[in-house]
Amino acid sequence: MRERPIGVFDSGLGGLTVVRELSRVLPGEDILYFGDTARVPYGGKSPQTIRRFVREIVTFLLGRGPKMLVVACNTAAAASLDLVRELSPVEVVDVIGPGAAAAVEAARGPVGVIATESTIASEAYTAAIERLAPGRRVIGQACPLLVPIVEEGFSEFDPIVLAVLSKYLRDLQRILPPREFAGPGAGDNVAGALILGCTHYPLLEGAIARLMGPAVSLVSSARAAAGEAQRRLALRDLHSQRSYGGRLNCFTTDNPDRFRRLGERFGGRSIDSVELVAVDEQDHLTRHGDAKTNP
Amino acid sequence: MRERPIGVFDSGLGGLTVVRELSRVLPGEDILYFGDTARVPYGGKSPQTIRRFVREIVTFLLGRGPKMLVVACNTAAAASLDLVRELSPVEVVDVIGPGAAAAVEAARGPVGVIATESTIASEAYTAAIERLAPGRRVIGQACPLLVPIVEEGFSEFDPIVLAVLSKYLRDLQRILPPREFAGPGAGDNVAGALILGCTHYPLLEGAIARLMGPAVSLVSSARAAAGEAQRRLALRDLHSQRSYGGRLNCFTTDNPDRFRRLGERFGGRSIDSVELVAVDEQDHLTRHGDAKTNP
Repeated sequence: MRERPIGVFDSGLGGLTVVRELSRVLPGEDILYFGDTARVPYGGKSPQTIRRFVREIVTFLLGRGPKMLVVACNTAAAASLDLVRELSPVEVVDVIGPGAAAAVEAARGPVGVIATESTIASEAYTAAIERLAPGRRVIGQACPLLVPIVEEGFSEFDPIVLAVLSKYLRDLQRILPPREFAGPGAGDNVAGALILGCTHYPLLEGAIARLMGPAVSLVSSARAAAGEAQRRLALRDLHSQRSYGGRLNCFTTDNPDRFRRLGERFGGRSIDSVELVAVDEQDHLTRHGDAKTNP
Repeated sequence: MRERPIGVFDSGLGGLTVVRELSRVLPGEDILYFGDTARVPYGGKSPQTIRRFVREIVTFLLGRGPKMLVVACNTAAAASLDLVRELSPVEVVDVIGPGAAAAVEAARGPVGVIATESTIASEAYTAAIERLAPGRRVIGQACPLLVPIVEEGFSEFDPIVLAVLSKYLRDLQRILPPREFAGPGAGDNVAGALILGCTHYPLLEGAIARLMGPAVSLVSSARAAAGEAQRRLALRDLHSQRSYGGRLNCFTTDNPDRFRRLGERFGGRSIDSVELVAVDEQDHLTRHGDAKTNP
């Protein structure tokens, strides 16, 4: 069991930022990553549709015997975490619970959440924070353009990217510190946190930090999820015996070449293999053996 | 046969700009529109995946007895027009052939094409123009952010939209007139045209026209396709006897409420019904009768 892989999935490439953090804290673990690039993005889609896609992916990954599943997509977690837990006989870690917990720990003031339309509409972060810190103010802001901007590979300090971020962050800049200082000396008690509630957003972290200023703690849901995965493996004594050299094998529903090309930028590490998995005409996820690309 | 509907499909909402033009020239025709919103956008996906999706959609529409099919999506046309023709016993009209013909007629100079990554990579416009006007210079520019920008509902004169357009159009501004003037008096012979090679782009036409200036003819592939559909119906004597009151019945694979809300902006007309069609667990397109929403 210890040497089984960790299964990680996302709507596309974004979840590789979770893999980046997992590889940092758990460098010996093998990872199976599933990116549903044929149907990306999930962010503007309905919960019903997202749940149908997630059911297929989880069934596929469970067929490969992982010791843990990581839902590395905020939109999928918001729409279907209950379903993943119901389907999975192994531990399930998501990005929203750990992201909410990290934000509550990082600051005592209001918490901003930036995410896709679907994640914001679900109010999943608001509910998770309310359970951990009842009464804490939570402000959500949907940012639909950020995923396509990151996927296109714009530099985070490109003037267009800064203009788009300024538009989305305008209200949060006003509500989060410094304007909400309760008075002299009260700064520490009201400092705010901003959750990067989409796994694509860590690639814009520098620009977001510049726009929000140093008084606001940025919380990466990707980093928080990796920390949670590490704790759960330790708790159940499921760590790999190896301390380095974990392999990353990926499955994608479209365009394995593009996946490999962009994937190493998102994952910040090498990818050992990328294999095309098709939703075929009977819509069972099936592997296309001939499309396998090895390094 | 005359009173059968015209079947129109697109990856999402964009094809409704073709419906808008069809309704203008053929106001009495009933239209069945299929928007694959669960899997939108197609623009960054591989031809193989797009062909799989298109096969499902065409099979669904043909089951409802249309007298003509309109491929109202440049990306789908570039990747699968041969497949649609092979599957369809009725006339097939696409956006690329008519768009290329309109551009060749509009100007004698170089032709620019702005479209999705997938359409540009296919070089479908280049090939179509080469057949019509051998040796004509064609310059393609992929504009991946424009579809999400239009879908988010930004105003076309928003500074962010103008900045994104300026970035994409920079090379075309240099290559298309006035810089290519051959000399005094030669202006008319070298005036250029720019094809809006994605059905979302007519919603940005005013801003694109402002950036390109009056010397460049803008060609809407949506308008060209509607004109071609009108000609083909006339040629085969398949026009409806009615001269007004054609109905627009839509099918969407996700989120019928959002479809209705945004659809009338894209289509510039009322929508008579929107029905949810699901790619179910066996991935046959099936109707969800209970999700039907009537006005």
